[in-house]
Amino acid sequence: MKVVGLIVEYNPLHNGHRYHFEQAMALTGAEACVIVMSGHFLQRGEPALVNKWARTRMALDMGVDLVFELPYVYSTQQAEIFAYGAVFLLNQLPFVTHLCFGSESGNLEELNTAARMLATESQSFKKTLKAKLKEGHPYAYAYGHALAAQLNKSDRVDAKTFAQPNNILGLHYLMALHQLKSTIQPVTIKRYKAHYHQQTLTDTHIASATSIRQALLETAVPDWEAIRPFVPSFTLDVLKEEYEAGRGLICWENFYSYLLYALLSHSARDLNRIYEMEEGIEHRLKACVLSSHSAKHLIEQVKTKRYTWNRIQRILVHTLTQCHKQDIENLSLQEGPAYLRLLGYSAKGRELLNRYKKELTIPLIANIRQAHPPMLDWDLKAARIYTLGYRSDIRAKEWKRELAQPPLRT
Amino acid sequence: MKVVGLIVEYNPLHNGHRYHFEQAMALTGAEACVIVMSGHFLQRGEPALVNKWARTRMALDMGVDLVFELPYVYSTQQAEIFAYGAVFLLNQLPFVTHLCFGSESGNLEELNTAARMLATESQSFKKTLKAKLKEGHPYAYAYGHALAAQLNKSDRVDAKTFAQPNNILGLHYLMALHQLKSTIQPVTIKRYKAHYHQQTLTDTHIASATSIRQALLETAVPDWEAIRPFVPSFTLDVLKEEYEAGRGLICWENFYSYLLYALLSHSARDLNRIYEMEEGIEHRLKACVLSSHSAKHLIEQVKTKRYTWNRIQRILVHTLTQCHKQDIENLSLQEGPAYLRLLGYSAKGRELLNRYKKELTIPLIANIRQAHPPMLDWDLKAARIYTLGYRSDIRAKEWKRELAQPPLRT
Repeated sequence: MKVVGLIVEYNPLHNGHRYHFEQAMALTGAEACVIVMSGHFLQRGEPALVNKWARTRMALDMGVDLVFELPYVYSTQQAEIFAYGAVFLLNQLPFVTHLCFGSESGNLEELNTAARMLATESQSFKKTLKAKLKEGHPYAYAYGHALAAQLNKSDRVDAKTFAQPNNILGLHYLMALHQLKSTIQPVTIKRYKAHYHQQTLTDTHIASATSIRQALLETAVPDWEAIRPFVPSFTLDVLKEEYEAGRGLICWENFYSYLLYALLSHSARDLNRIYEMEEGIEHRLKACVLSSHSAKHLIEQVKTKRYTWNRIQRILVHTLTQCHKQDIENLSLQEGPAYLRLLGYSAKGRELLNRYKKELTIPLIANIRQAHPPMLDWDLKAARIYTLGYRSDIRAKEWKRELAQPPLRT
Repeated sequence: MKVVGLIVEYNPLHNGHRYHFEQAMALTGAEACVIVMSGHFLQRGEPALVNKWARTRMALDMGVDLVFELPYVYSTQQAEIFAYGAVFLLNQLPFVTHLCFGSESGNLEELNTAARMLATESQSFKKTLKAKLKEGHPYAYAYGHALAAQLNKSDRVDAKTFAQPNNILGLHYLMALHQLKSTIQPVTIKRYKAHYHQQTLTDTHIASATSIRQALLETAVPDWEAIRPFVPSFTLDVLKEEYEAGRGLICWENFYSYLLYALLSHSARDLNRIYEMEEGIEHRLKACVLSSHSAKHLIEQVKTKRYTWNRIQRILVHTLTQCHKQDIENLSLQEGPAYLRLLGYSAKGRELLNRYKKELTIPLIANIRQAHPPMLDWDLKAARIYTLGYRSDIRAKEWKRELAQPPLRT
């Protein structure tokens, strides 16, 4: 039996995601689908529009069979660590036969050639990357150039391919598969029209998650009709339900006051302990926060050529959760996620787990009250802090929920 | 010329304060009055109802000639350190001839006998205090008993006197005068009816500040008429102005979300760095915060025989401002406040300052932009964090104000 794995955020789940899901099943001939989904804070350093349970519900309604949470300490990282954590989890599941990811390129051979090249020539790559960073370039730029320098040695790979964000993620998935000596077969699907950075709704039924979030957040009361053409009906139902319960819609502005407070109350020295807080950016943050009037405005002020939007957002996520360099170091991320946290399952998903659970080498966690690795405390903390974005009268109930909530079922 | 000094919070300034001010002037024959006033956070561990500028305005309107700020690191302390900081500042001013304080006792000789006794027999007193604390009693209880044990040796002093909060404060003022070998003459005035702990409005024109705050805070929109009989008209004007500008009325509930956030986001280990966070109370706070629904509810849950309401509130103030044990240690409080921060003055007050400013041994600070001792950074930080309790659209302006505001004038 074939089982395909996907790495997702579903923020929120839209028609493009459904297209990808259906294509992944068809192309691989899979009978089941497993996803690794980020929790409350995402790879670009943003809080999710709605919580992980709501997004799990969307995934199950679409037809996914198993939903696992990508731990906070991997979900809020640059592409390399994010990809490693997610692929590591899929690779723990003996029944996953394929990994299917979207890319701008759609050319697996090209991506895989680059991945193999980087795996074997990593020393010279790292040297170029380090040199570019030292010249003061932002990480993504330096990475792209180091990659290009490496790939130019080959005429089978077009260096420009790696200026595109989904190609870079895909490359890192492939590198992680190599690194883990995984037997999972990679498959890529060319992304359908919508670009990652697109911010307006143009197509008739496919739009980027970014443009969907913007359409929902730009009015005081969400304009559900504006997004109806672009999302499955179950997404709309879940979003409405969360909104009416006071659990969203969430964006950085919901945490602006707490960011202000964190930046005002901590000394620069204490802020420097925060993960990814480097090169004195803590001083820049402390200076800019006093003249900011929103989270967006703060990020705009702090942004420079060197500090990209996403990098600043990730630093702010770790500031919000008080995640320190020492905390990340203690968790030894290179050893991979320490558990499989089950968020949801179908009947078929449960069968798969029951059949293979004895072969798992890291604990399967369905109930957070049970003893769990310290890494999971960060997911719990992230969930509690995310709840501060909710309507204030439901927080206490929601804190209890995170401890009590069993995995959702189809 | 005689000049009387008062140590005040004016939270808010009411008829009892005015009575005390008039009596102090009359009893001492003073021609001018200097006050040392707490800034935004007070001795019982509470944020002030309105900011220090508004309360300075009240004091000037009443007829006070000079208003100095008691630094944050003294204003939020138990009686001994609070009193030492305030008396130290008055003692820096060569023109202050008297210190006048309210007490339940009204008997200066009794208080002064106790003060002298404690000054000379401090070793045996400290030993008893330590023993009582070790038995698990709260600080105030242990202090009262240690005091009683000491005083019982004398038939000139009634130990019961020191169960009353203003007598204890007065005792510490007198001890500080002895310690500083000050030439300032102490005078005490028996408090007029209202008790510190009284919470309802009973008298026809005198009520405690606590009952006045409660009357104002118990309705969604302040019931100004309820307090009119108990406060001077200028107090009412200032309170209304602050309220309409979005700068109050402030109470712990305005900071509840930030407290939640601080207690959720910091590890117990980091919370243990907070000043006055002792004996594992950080674990109790982290546990209680998850089931709390207000700041008051949180304090009620954390409170035990051992941790008094005021002590918990002070710990929460230091949590809110992220004031660490190490920070306080670095400031060497035993050396006294490092500056005289002028908040307001009358023409007479200015004359006094001009005449004597060359004799001052610590810097007089009228403009916070000038170079200032590190201790003052805590007042600035406290002011910024206090501003988080304001209406959110005026915060940025108010942050600038704290840097730009010159002392107020009559």
